[in-house]
Amino acid sequence: MTNRFNEASLAEINAVMERSLTAFQEYRQISSDDKAVFLECIATEIEALGDALIVQASAETNLPAARLTGERGRTTFQLRMFANMLREGSWVEASIDTAIPDKNPPKPDIRKQLIALGPVVVFGASNFPFAYSTAGGDTASALAAGCSVVVKAHPAHAATSQMVYEAIQTAIAKTNMPKYIFQHVHGSSFEIGKTLVQHDATAAVGFTGSFAGGKALYDHAAARKNPIPVFSEMGSINPVILLPDSVNKNAASLAKQLAASITLGMGQFCTNPGLLLTVESEGLHSFIDTLGNEIEKVIPANMLHAGIHTAYDNKMHDALAQKAVVLIKHSSVVSKNIEALPTVATVNAQIFLANPLLHEEVFGPYSLLVVCKNINELIAVWKSVRGQLTTSLMGTDQDLADHPELLQIAESIAGRIVFNNVPTGVEVCASMVHGGPFPASTDSRFTAVGIHAVKRWVRPVCYQNCPQQLLPEALKNENTKRIWRLVNNEWTKNDVEC
Amino acid sequence: MTNRFNEASLAEINAVMERSLTAFQEYRQISSDDKAVFLECIATEIEALGDALIVQASAETNLPAARLTGERGRTTFQLRMFANMLREGSWVEASIDTAIPDKNPPKPDIRKQLIALGPVVVFGASNFPFAYSTAGGDTASALAAGCSVVVKAHPAHAATSQMVYEAIQTAIAKTNMPKYIFQHVHGSSFEIGKTLVQHDATAAVGFTGSFAGGKALYDHAAARKNPIPVFSEMGSINPVILLPDSVNKNAASLAKQLAASITLGMGQFCTNPGLLLTVESEGLHSFIDTLGNEIEKVIPANMLHAGIHTAYDNKMHDALAQKAVVLIKHSSVVSKNIEALPTVATVNAQIFLANPLLHEEVFGPYSLLVVCKNINELIAVWKSVRGQLTTSLMGTDQDLADHPELLQIAESIAGRIVFNNVPTGVEVCASMVHGGPFPASTDSRFTAVGIHAVKRWVRPVCYQNCPQQLLPEALKNENTKRIWRLVNNEWTKNDVEC
Repeated sequence: MTNRFNEASLAEINAVMERSLTAFQEYRQISSDDKAVFLECIATEIEALGDALIVQASAETNLPAARLTGERGRTTFQLRMFANMLREGSWVEASIDTAIPDKNPPKPDIRKQLIALGPVVVFGASNFPFAYSTAGGDTASALAAGCSVVVKAHPAHAATSQMVYEAIQTAIAKTNMPKYIFQHVHGSSFEIGKTLVQHDATAAVGFTGSFAGGKALYDHAAARKNPIPVFSEMGSINPVILLPDSVNKNAASLAKQLAASITLGMGQFCTNPGLLLTVESEGLHSFIDTLGNEIEKVIPANMLHAGIHTAYDNKMHDALAQKAVVLIKHSSVVSKNIEALPTVATVNAQIFLANPLLHEEVFGPYSLLVVCKNINELIAVWKSVRGQLTTSLMGTDQDLADHPELLQIAESIAGRIVFNNVPTGVEVCASMVHGGPFPASTDSRFTAVGIHAVKRWVRPVCYQNCPQQLLPEALKNENTKRIWRLVNNEWTKNDVEC
Repeated sequence: MTNRFNEASLAEINAVMERSLTAFQEYRQISSDDKAVFLECIATEIEALGDALIVQASAETNLPAARLTGERGRTTFQLRMFANMLREGSWVEASIDTAIPDKNPPKPDIRKQLIALGPVVVFGASNFPFAYSTAGGDTASALAAGCSVVVKAHPAHAATSQMVYEAIQTAIAKTNMPKYIFQHVHGSSFEIGKTLVQHDATAAVGFTGSFAGGKALYDHAAARKNPIPVFSEMGSINPVILLPDSVNKNAASLAKQLAASITLGMGQFCTNPGLLLTVESEGLHSFIDTLGNEIEKVIPANMLHAGIHTAYDNKMHDALAQKAVVLIKHSSVVSKNIEALPTVATVNAQIFLANPLLHEEVFGPYSLLVVCKNINELIAVWKSVRGQLTTSLMGTDQDLADHPELLQIAESIAGRIVFNNVPTGVEVCASMVHGGPFPASTDSRFTAVGIHAVKRWVRPVCYQNCPQQLLPEALKNENTKRIWRLVNNEWTKNDVEC
């Protein structure tokens, strides 16, 4: 890929990271309310780019305007959500244990809250040029946490990224933030990523994309003299369990729902249902027929870029070429150039279990139906896949009552368990978990979506016998912002009585 | 070191980890209340060992009975604290976002809580044979989280560890827990540690001890095909900042307080104040004189074991042999055999900055006073040290008002900031942070002490459109345990109205 932006030199990256560290120190002096205004201003400035941003993004990603408009809304919503979180203030997890001087030994006064880690380097995703990119969830949560941010622009939408960067620069100027609180680096070499991750000033890393990319950054961070946290959200095949009573009763509607999810956005979602698991049942033929018919009807469309198309085409055909893998249907329309050919195939459980290639993500509008002899074989297949962002259970009340053991397996596999719905569609809310056991993400203890995404970029610090006037606002006796605090083991919004 | 226990074979370790995984799955079916009873029963069974446990531990560690009795109390307190946490129940961070069906697209019902990661391998510390060892904070927090635990017994107190293991076995039998929920492995080879950390079934690792040990385990975990979290709490030199007005006004009391902290338990604490920083001031000579006099008076005592004594003796003498390092005082009593010789020395800032060896931990009753020309030089020295568990500010109100910039530096260096007190003494409470920027610990986002230590061993999982009867207790509409939950972004103990 080439673009009109110069590849950053290593000297430039060093300068960027040094400036990021200085800006971080300045940003620490800025109030939460002012940071909230900054985040809202970024949202407003992105909106102010108007159609030009959508046109540019569509030109670079081949994504349709309606989809991009929706994604822009998600992006500005996230920025405003974190602004609200800052204004409300309880996110710092303030905890206060007051002194007990006559205890033996005397118990000191101890108070703790979360503080920002430092400069965060963000690597965005090609498939979400707004929501998981320049001003996406990683950037918004890191700026909210109090971190400075350096984004490595995705080379597949570098000009879009540049436009968003400029909107953020305008917001920085308008709200009087440190000039280098947000910086932007162009480049496509692996060396740039490695240099950013291994720079002394870098405190944490956020990544959304392929397993190869995310794991490489994780390894670079672990190899540092002082290792740093990396949250890479990587591939997932999102197993969907089709239970027999549901297949028998709802074959057609299940098939239609899944065909739509498999091909949504030409399958270019990390929550795409790439693996369907079921047992032999009366309704199975009807399900397969409808699934094939639905896929046949889907018109191929351009993928994000030629590299993704080539990878899809190769992996899809490799999967179909495996022993005993049977094509159900391709789209009936022949794909041209970088269009993806929607495809579903099927295989039996024993073949699947024996062939690791079939466990790999085929990023695009493809799904593999694994037919098992019985529920025990289905469970064996399910457990054989690695960690997942999501897993879905399609089952009637009867199915779920018949198989109470399924929930515990689902919990051990995925970050999100979906009942009777497809995995595509990630609601931005406090209860969302977008992350999961490796390799869904590099640290299953955190989510990339929702306000708790902020926890990736903070650490607790405690103050022992600190004079009132030196304590951070959230930890003073007087609870001026009326935030929730854990005071002597009880949650309260009250002041501390001393 | 040799002991009467057989070194575990690699085949044995494999069997131990397989059993741990099975026990973990069984333990998931057990209620929080029953887990609480189990933790309390462990505490009771440890107490039931009586003096025999103290005698055995004292024989293996050379620690005096009074100290060990106190540490046993801390250990049983921690177990009961986690039992209380389980009974109260809010620790699972339940979060509920109810559905909005008429939103476009419809918002699903999403609910999340924390669940256990899986089998945790714990490596205890030689200097805390109870509180950071077999049934210590890592084990207690992991069992509370819902994890199974495998402890690698510390070879320096293997028989003590075996006694505690047997007490836990009794508690397992009495409370009808899965037989292998807690297991114990003897051995001193590096290969055993590596095999435990890299076993497929291992989900997380807790370690307390040296930098070399903790970092090696971190590296083994990062090199796995599926990396896992490692919380290693490692060395720290705990810089104490002595501000000039305080030195001028309180020279003698400061010196006495610090001498006591430096030599407490023969300096064998991770929070030992190994580095004192001050500026030239009128009171400095008086401070140094008193510090030297106090250290002279301390009677050498046996260290934990010969290996620790040799390391101390070598590192202390190496430090004293460095260019321009000036001995203040040794203890006036000559040390014999494995007794530690209490020692304080001094050096100027420029020499300290230029010599990395002086930045290293000397584990034992030793501290180095660095005298700086002015506060800016002191800040440069302070910033030159790596991440710390603690840093202390000894200052009058005048000192602290004169130097408002110090708090932000302290926050960036340490997990705990102590005002006008020594760093030794780690209160077990919710607001405690025991951990800090690398290399104080391998993940500064977590604490090893206090109820939040449980967060190292859990991950969030969310349930989308899950039928009420399948939801975990904490996420059902009816809030039977009256725990705190985040419901549609508001903290409440109420039921969810639907």
